[in-house]
Amino acid sequence: MLRGKDILSMVQFSKQELNLIMNTAASYERRVKNNDYIDDMDGQVVACLFFEPSTRTRLSFESAANRLDARVINVIGADSSSTAKGESLEDTIRVVDGYIDVIVIRHSIIGSAQIAADNAVHPVINAGDGSNQHPTQSLVDIYTIRKEKGTLNGHTVTFLGDLKYGRTVHSLGYFMTLYGNKMIFVSPKALCMPEELTADFRSRGADIEETENLEEALAKSDIVYVTRIQKERFADSEEYNRLKGSYIIDRNTIARAKKGITVLHPLPRVDEIATDVDDYEGAAYFRQANNGMYVRMALLSLVSGSV
Amino acid sequence: MLRGKDILSMVQFSKQELNLIMNTAASYERRVKNNDYIDDMDGQVVACLFFEPSTRTRLSFESAANRLDARVINVIGADSSSTAKGESLEDTIRVVDGYIDVIVIRHSIIGSAQIAADNAVHPVINAGDGSNQHPTQSLVDIYTIRKEKGTLNGHTVTFLGDLKYGRTVHSLGYFMTLYGNKMIFVSPKALCMPEELTADFRSRGADIEETENLEEALAKSDIVYVTRIQKERFADSEEYNRLKGSYIIDRNTIARAKKGITVLHPLPRVDEIATDVDDYEGAAYFRQANNGMYVRMALLSLVSGSV
Amino acid sequence: MLRGKDILSMVQFSKQELNLIMNTAASYERRVKNNDYIDDMDGQVVACLFFEPSTRTRLSFESAANRLDARVINVIGADSSSTAKGESLEDTIRVVDGYIDVIVIRHSIIGSAQIAADNAVHPVINAGDGSNQHPTQSLVDIYTIRKEKGTLNGHTVTFLGDLKYGRTVHSLGYFMTLYGNKMIFVSPKALCMPEELTADFRSRGADIEETENLEEALAKSDIVYVTRIQKERFADSEEYNRLKGSYIIDRNTIARAKKGITVLHPLPRVDEIATDVDDYEGAAYFRQANNGMYVRMALLSLVSGSV
Repeated sequence: MLRGKDILSMVQFSKQELNLIMNTAASYERRVKNNDYIDDMDGQVVACLFFEPSTRTRLSFESAANRLDARVINVIGADSSSTAKGESLEDTIRVVDGYIDVIVIRHSIIGSAQIAADNAVHPVINAGDGSNQHPTQSLVDIYTIRKEKGTLNGHTVTFLGDLKYGRTVHSLGYFMTLYGNKMIFVSPKALCMPEELTADFRSRGADIEETENLEEALAKSDIVYVTRIQKERFADSEEYNRLKGSYIIDRNTIARAKKGITVLHPLPRVDEIATDVDDYEGAAYFRQANNGMYVRMALLSLVSGSV
Repeated sequence: MLRGKDILSMVQFSKQELNLIMNTAASYERRVKNNDYIDDMDGQVVACLFFEPSTRTRLSFESAANRLDARVINVIGADSSSTAKGESLEDTIRVVDGYIDVIVIRHSIIGSAQIAADNAVHPVINAGDGSNQHPTQSLVDIYTIRKEKGTLNGHTVTFLGDLKYGRTVHSLGYFMTLYGNKMIFVSPKALCMPEELTADFRSRGADIEETENLEEALAKSDIVYVTRIQKERFADSEEYNRLKGSYIIDRNTIARAKKGITVLHPLPRVDEIATDVDDYEGAAYFRQANNGMYVRMALLSLVSGSV
Repeated sequence: MLRGKDILSMVQFSKQELNLIMNTAASYERRVKNNDYIDDMDGQVVACLFFEPSTRTRLSFESAANRLDARVINVIGADSSSTAKGESLEDTIRVVDGYIDVIVIRHSIIGSAQIAADNAVHPVINAGDGSNQHPTQSLVDIYTIRKEKGTLNGHTVTFLGDLKYGRTVHSLGYFMTLYGNKMIFVSPKALCMPEELTADFRSRGADIEETENLEEALAKSDIVYVTRIQKERFADSEEYNRLKGSYIIDRNTIARAKKGITVLHPLPRVDEIATDVDDYEGAAYFRQANNGMYVRMALLSLVSGSV
């Protein structure tokens, strides 16, 4: 169903495709944990072109490719010598496309993954194009929710932190809408969910609440999805320090939240989740990160037609 | 015939060796396109030491090694920690030589590949030593001409652009002489082919014409080999802008050129070939880049005695 | 015996464990030189996290992993994007631990390898944590002595150069004590072996001599272990130049030393061993570097339970 397709955006998937990806990821998770011999991509080469560095995402893609017995060639950083010589992204992709079987690209420019897809014969996976899309992170998020909660439907999900700039939050909001979940948006006013997105989610039937009261929100939430509030977003650093403190999850927050609440975070975290939460059993953010490898194994294998 | 040998310079090869390399590359091209299982270098390790970064060349070598089932270790950039600590290239090579089966080296200093070869037990492939030699690019060029034209003999080849500093142009001129082709050199005066090279080619029997008239040259050429004119070569940037414009290949140029003319370029290009040429069927520069992997597979396999 | 264990410090090993490591390394050395097919770590992934770059050590670990048929993912340099975003080392390790089977870490901060081990389910190998420990280098040193001399016992070993800051010298001193060797420390006063270490070695029964007279020391030594004197250690650069000269090993020094003396150096060298020593048969420093791969193959294989 996905053979030969590009993975560019979170809105491209049908529910059947999402199920296929999640089931394939679950199967790979089982096989890796079993130490099964996996060589579904034996003889294939994956190009990981990280023009914008992102260690975590790169390592999870490279591990995934290696676990499938594919080989990896990579570019790390914008100062790749061809780009420095003035070569267009189009040309770079057309050249690399001749060496490999799948291209994974991360680039700071919005639309770059689409450009790559337009110039490659082989499938392209978008590993983040600027502030635009990061579809594989969103797939990891829903895979994690399904695994932690047993189902993707019927939850109340609080989104916490920087809801304005966080692309993972925007994508996840879309998916939660798709699967009929209730959403509560908790953020400082300056970083609230963009109005057009909230309107879009509502037009698709989503039940949405917006508040600054974290405690009330968590008291009725099955899941909280935490994001980092970046200092750079504030003109006034006192404002930053004041706000930051009011949106920290620690063991006290958890004690007052709905029993069994699942805590997610796309990582890296700084201090928005206190480390005393790490051994709370509902703290799923490291499991979420680890799921990244299985979901990316599924994507690489599916688009290359190896599974 | 090449087992255990170093690949250092374009003048080292006999015609038999060139044929062996091209035939081996053609065989690998067929097998890769067939999705044949290739493990000729299974268990071997290739060191790609790119002290001077060159993304395209590195990726084509690393893909080639991986396609042969070899493994790659690499160094990217001059600030390798050992060099920073004052270690000589000789010592670095003697150490790395103990880990690997083949060394690929790119270095900004003329003669560095020879130094590597002198200090390594294993074969060394020169992937560019400063302005000196870049033999694997030249092998890709002639492999491409043979593939595009069916033969290496009897063509009229226009060399266009920076003929003074372009080492690929110098090497290709040598090969075209070797195979009895007519050459036309088209360049701004300031960037013309060095006199001693022209004299050398002539002394080997080459038929050479020099002109600034691109249109006339292309009207009688079977092949045009385009190179980038670098702004840094000009003291006067107005001069650069004026000249640059007169040596651009676009669809109009092609329309007035000899029918079926093949357009080559070692890439990266900036704007010396307009993108409207890309879908002209004789535009062979992306195929040329892709051929890089097959030629490098042939070299790695031959020098390591794996084929 | 070492399955699942971390390799963090040189003092952690029993003599049985040291023997196991050296015998395993010797077996891998034989098999690699025989071109035997080795796939002991087939299907496994090794993370080489070199937050502090160290080309030589990284390449020897990556070669070792590849020679065992494992795959490598790596991080080179401190500006890894997660760290830049303020992520703790603890979190980085917990994430990466989900992708791999063994972690190799080099980091400029003392104790970082211990932090990694505390946060990883999988075994961690310390490839250098600041000025603290570099246990794999020490294992290479003793493997080399055993190979060069046939035994680890009963030698007179001169330590030459910077004995104050050199962590490899401190570790080797410990091992030489463990195996009952006599030690002579030769260094400028400002760079002599720390008193507490000398005292510790003596309390373990070591026979130690300290001198500034290199010639006398070498006349009775079976082994000389040379280290680099770093200019940065001296306030006064004239002092540096004067001292540097008095501790250089060249063919004249060798001619006056005990017949058959073995010359070791952890590399990189600058000029503390003249290149005219390189073809002296007792010059073992390049063999020592090459041994690095075999010892690291043994460690990777043992801790991952693959041998």
